Amino acid sequence: MSPDLAASESLSSAMARIAAEVESALEVLLPAPEGGEARLLAAMRYATLGGGKRLRAFLVMQSAGLFGVDPGCAARVAASVEMLHAYSLVHDDLPAMDDDDLRRGKPSTHKAFDEATAILAGDALQTRAFEVLAEPDTHSNPEARCELVAALAHAAGARGMCGGQMIDMLAEGRELTADEIARLQALKTGRLIQYSAEAGAILGRAPAHQRHLLAAYGRDLGAAFQIADDLLDAVGTTEETGKTAGKDAAAGKATLVSVLGVERARRQAAMLAEQAAGHVESFGESAALLRQLVAYVVSRRS
Amino acid sequence: MSPDLAASESLSSAMARIAAEVESALEVLLPAPEGGEARLLAAMRYATLGGGKRLRAFLVMQSAGLFGVDPGCAARVAASVEMLHAYSLVHDDLPAMDDDDLRRGKPSTHKAFDEATAILAGDALQTRAFEVLAEPDTHSNPEARCELVAALAHAAGARGMCGGQMIDMLAEGRELTADEIARLQALKTGRLIQYSAEAGAILGRAPAHQRHLLAAYGRDLGAAFQIADDLLDAVGTTEETGKTAGKDAAAGKATLVSVLGVERARRQAAMLAEQAAGHVESFGESAALLRQLVAYVVSRRS
Repeated sequence: MSPDLAASESLSSAMARIAAEVESALEVLLPAPEGGEARLLAAMRYATLGGGKRLRAFLVMQSAGLFGVDPGCAARVAASVEMLHAYSLVHDDLPAMDDDDLRRGKPSTHKAFDEATAILAGDALQTRAFEVLAEPDTHSNPEARCELVAALAHAAGARGMCGGQMIDMLAEGRELTADEIARLQALKTGRLIQYSAEAGAILGRAPAHQRHLLAAYGRDLGAAFQIADDLLDAVGTTEETGKTAGKDAAAGKATLVSVLGVERARRQAAMLAEQAAGHVESFGESAALLRQLVAYVVSRRS
Repeated sequence: MSPDLAASESLSSAMARIAAEVESALEVLLPAPEGGEARLLAAMRYATLGGGKRLRAFLVMQSAGLFGVDPGCAARVAASVEMLHAYSLVHDDLPAMDDDDLRRGKPSTHKAFDEATAILAGDALQTRAFEVLAEPDTHSNPEARCELVAALAHAAGARGMCGGQMIDMLAEGRELTADEIARLQALKTGRLIQYSAEAGAILGRAPAHQRHLLAAYGRDLGAAFQIADDLLDAVGTTEETGKTAGKDAAAGKATLVSVLGVERARRQAAMLAEQAAGHVESFGESAALLRQLVAYVVSRRS
């Protein structure tokens, strides 16, 4: 077995373990469907539980591990960012937005429930994400909790994820430059990935330069991740990805792949990946999985 | 001039002064419409600025005044709750929810912009409300900031405002008991009013029993406010209220007025108002405006 393959196996088992841990945390942190509002609570659970690779949760847990943060505290922060991510998917899928009927192979939330319930479930998931961060169980130091709330809000708000989604909606059918696309994607998906990598440093009360290294790692990882995603859409087959191949091109969506071409986009992703790995070099062996994650992200086939 | 009339004039001038203060704070705290996301930022400002009586902001400023809180800090918290309130109105007005084309006499946000922009503007207003609370300028003590975030989230989330809106949507056309209606309204509008009254005590690091008195005041005030609103809808003329009279009855909406009748509802509101005023009796003269507000709320004609 090549060293790379062995590494990728240990990464996949770590990702599976962390996905299970965050699932348990979410089970506890999302209210049980009871009372007149049970339908709302059921929709929140439907949108959040049992889904995805939990990339953001993985970043929180791994970055927290660098500073010896209590895993229970880190799991709350990991669950919180997955709630925030789930809210964004529920709202992005709405008919007025990207109008997607499927999410992770299941009916999207407004299809499984209805539009009003999906809007409210997204709203309440965002609320719960911030509530979990602010609660004393997340960290004994209230300064750390406030910093997490402010950093997540910065990543998610009008100058972050929501702003990116707005630009994306306005861009449909328009020609964007490579720089414009890069900014759109940095806002829409990059900021939350950056926050996730930074969160461990906030939890660990790490010195500013270490927090900045993790932020830079998350920024480059997020950008590489997005190009890899666009490459998969452009060159992956429907069979490999489980999604309709060529969907972006069919929808007239500008991506870095459509603007730069496959080869240059591939080189760009490789360069970003190398940069990302470099940012966490100084953490040594304890950041090995963060470096393997970079390689996984740019080489994955689905 | 009767003492009551004099009191009501000083209340109205205090309300106007505070509305102007919170407007200035909102002007500063809402980002200027710049960059590719300018449309989103413009929608956030459209939904929030220049509107309403600012009841929630008034409660924050008055309760903070009881404890000598710096008015600049209190104004940030007041602005934050108005952003949260504005977000809830934007989403409630959406076609999939209450489908209202007008709000405060202007086109609602999805009419002035479009549905996608309105969804995103509501989302980003909620985010910004929490961000403002978590930022150091809101209070030198991070514990106070975390408590504000957690209390606002509790009031706004699935077991609060969002839950109330869910129950309200499910209740349309169904018969509810007086108790069910009271719970629905306590969640949908009461919790945020209660939070607003409590916020001053959190900012002022007040002892628990004073925080509880203000919470109880806010709870009873919110309930009285809701019945008064329903009475206005049932017996006010369109001319007096500026809204279509009898809209609730026409929509088949159960209110305490429709279940209890006008006279019993009026007595219930008066009883709640008396209770609310009683909770802040122990604060003496400094709570005079809070007591006058109660009288204003149940006697207003628009």
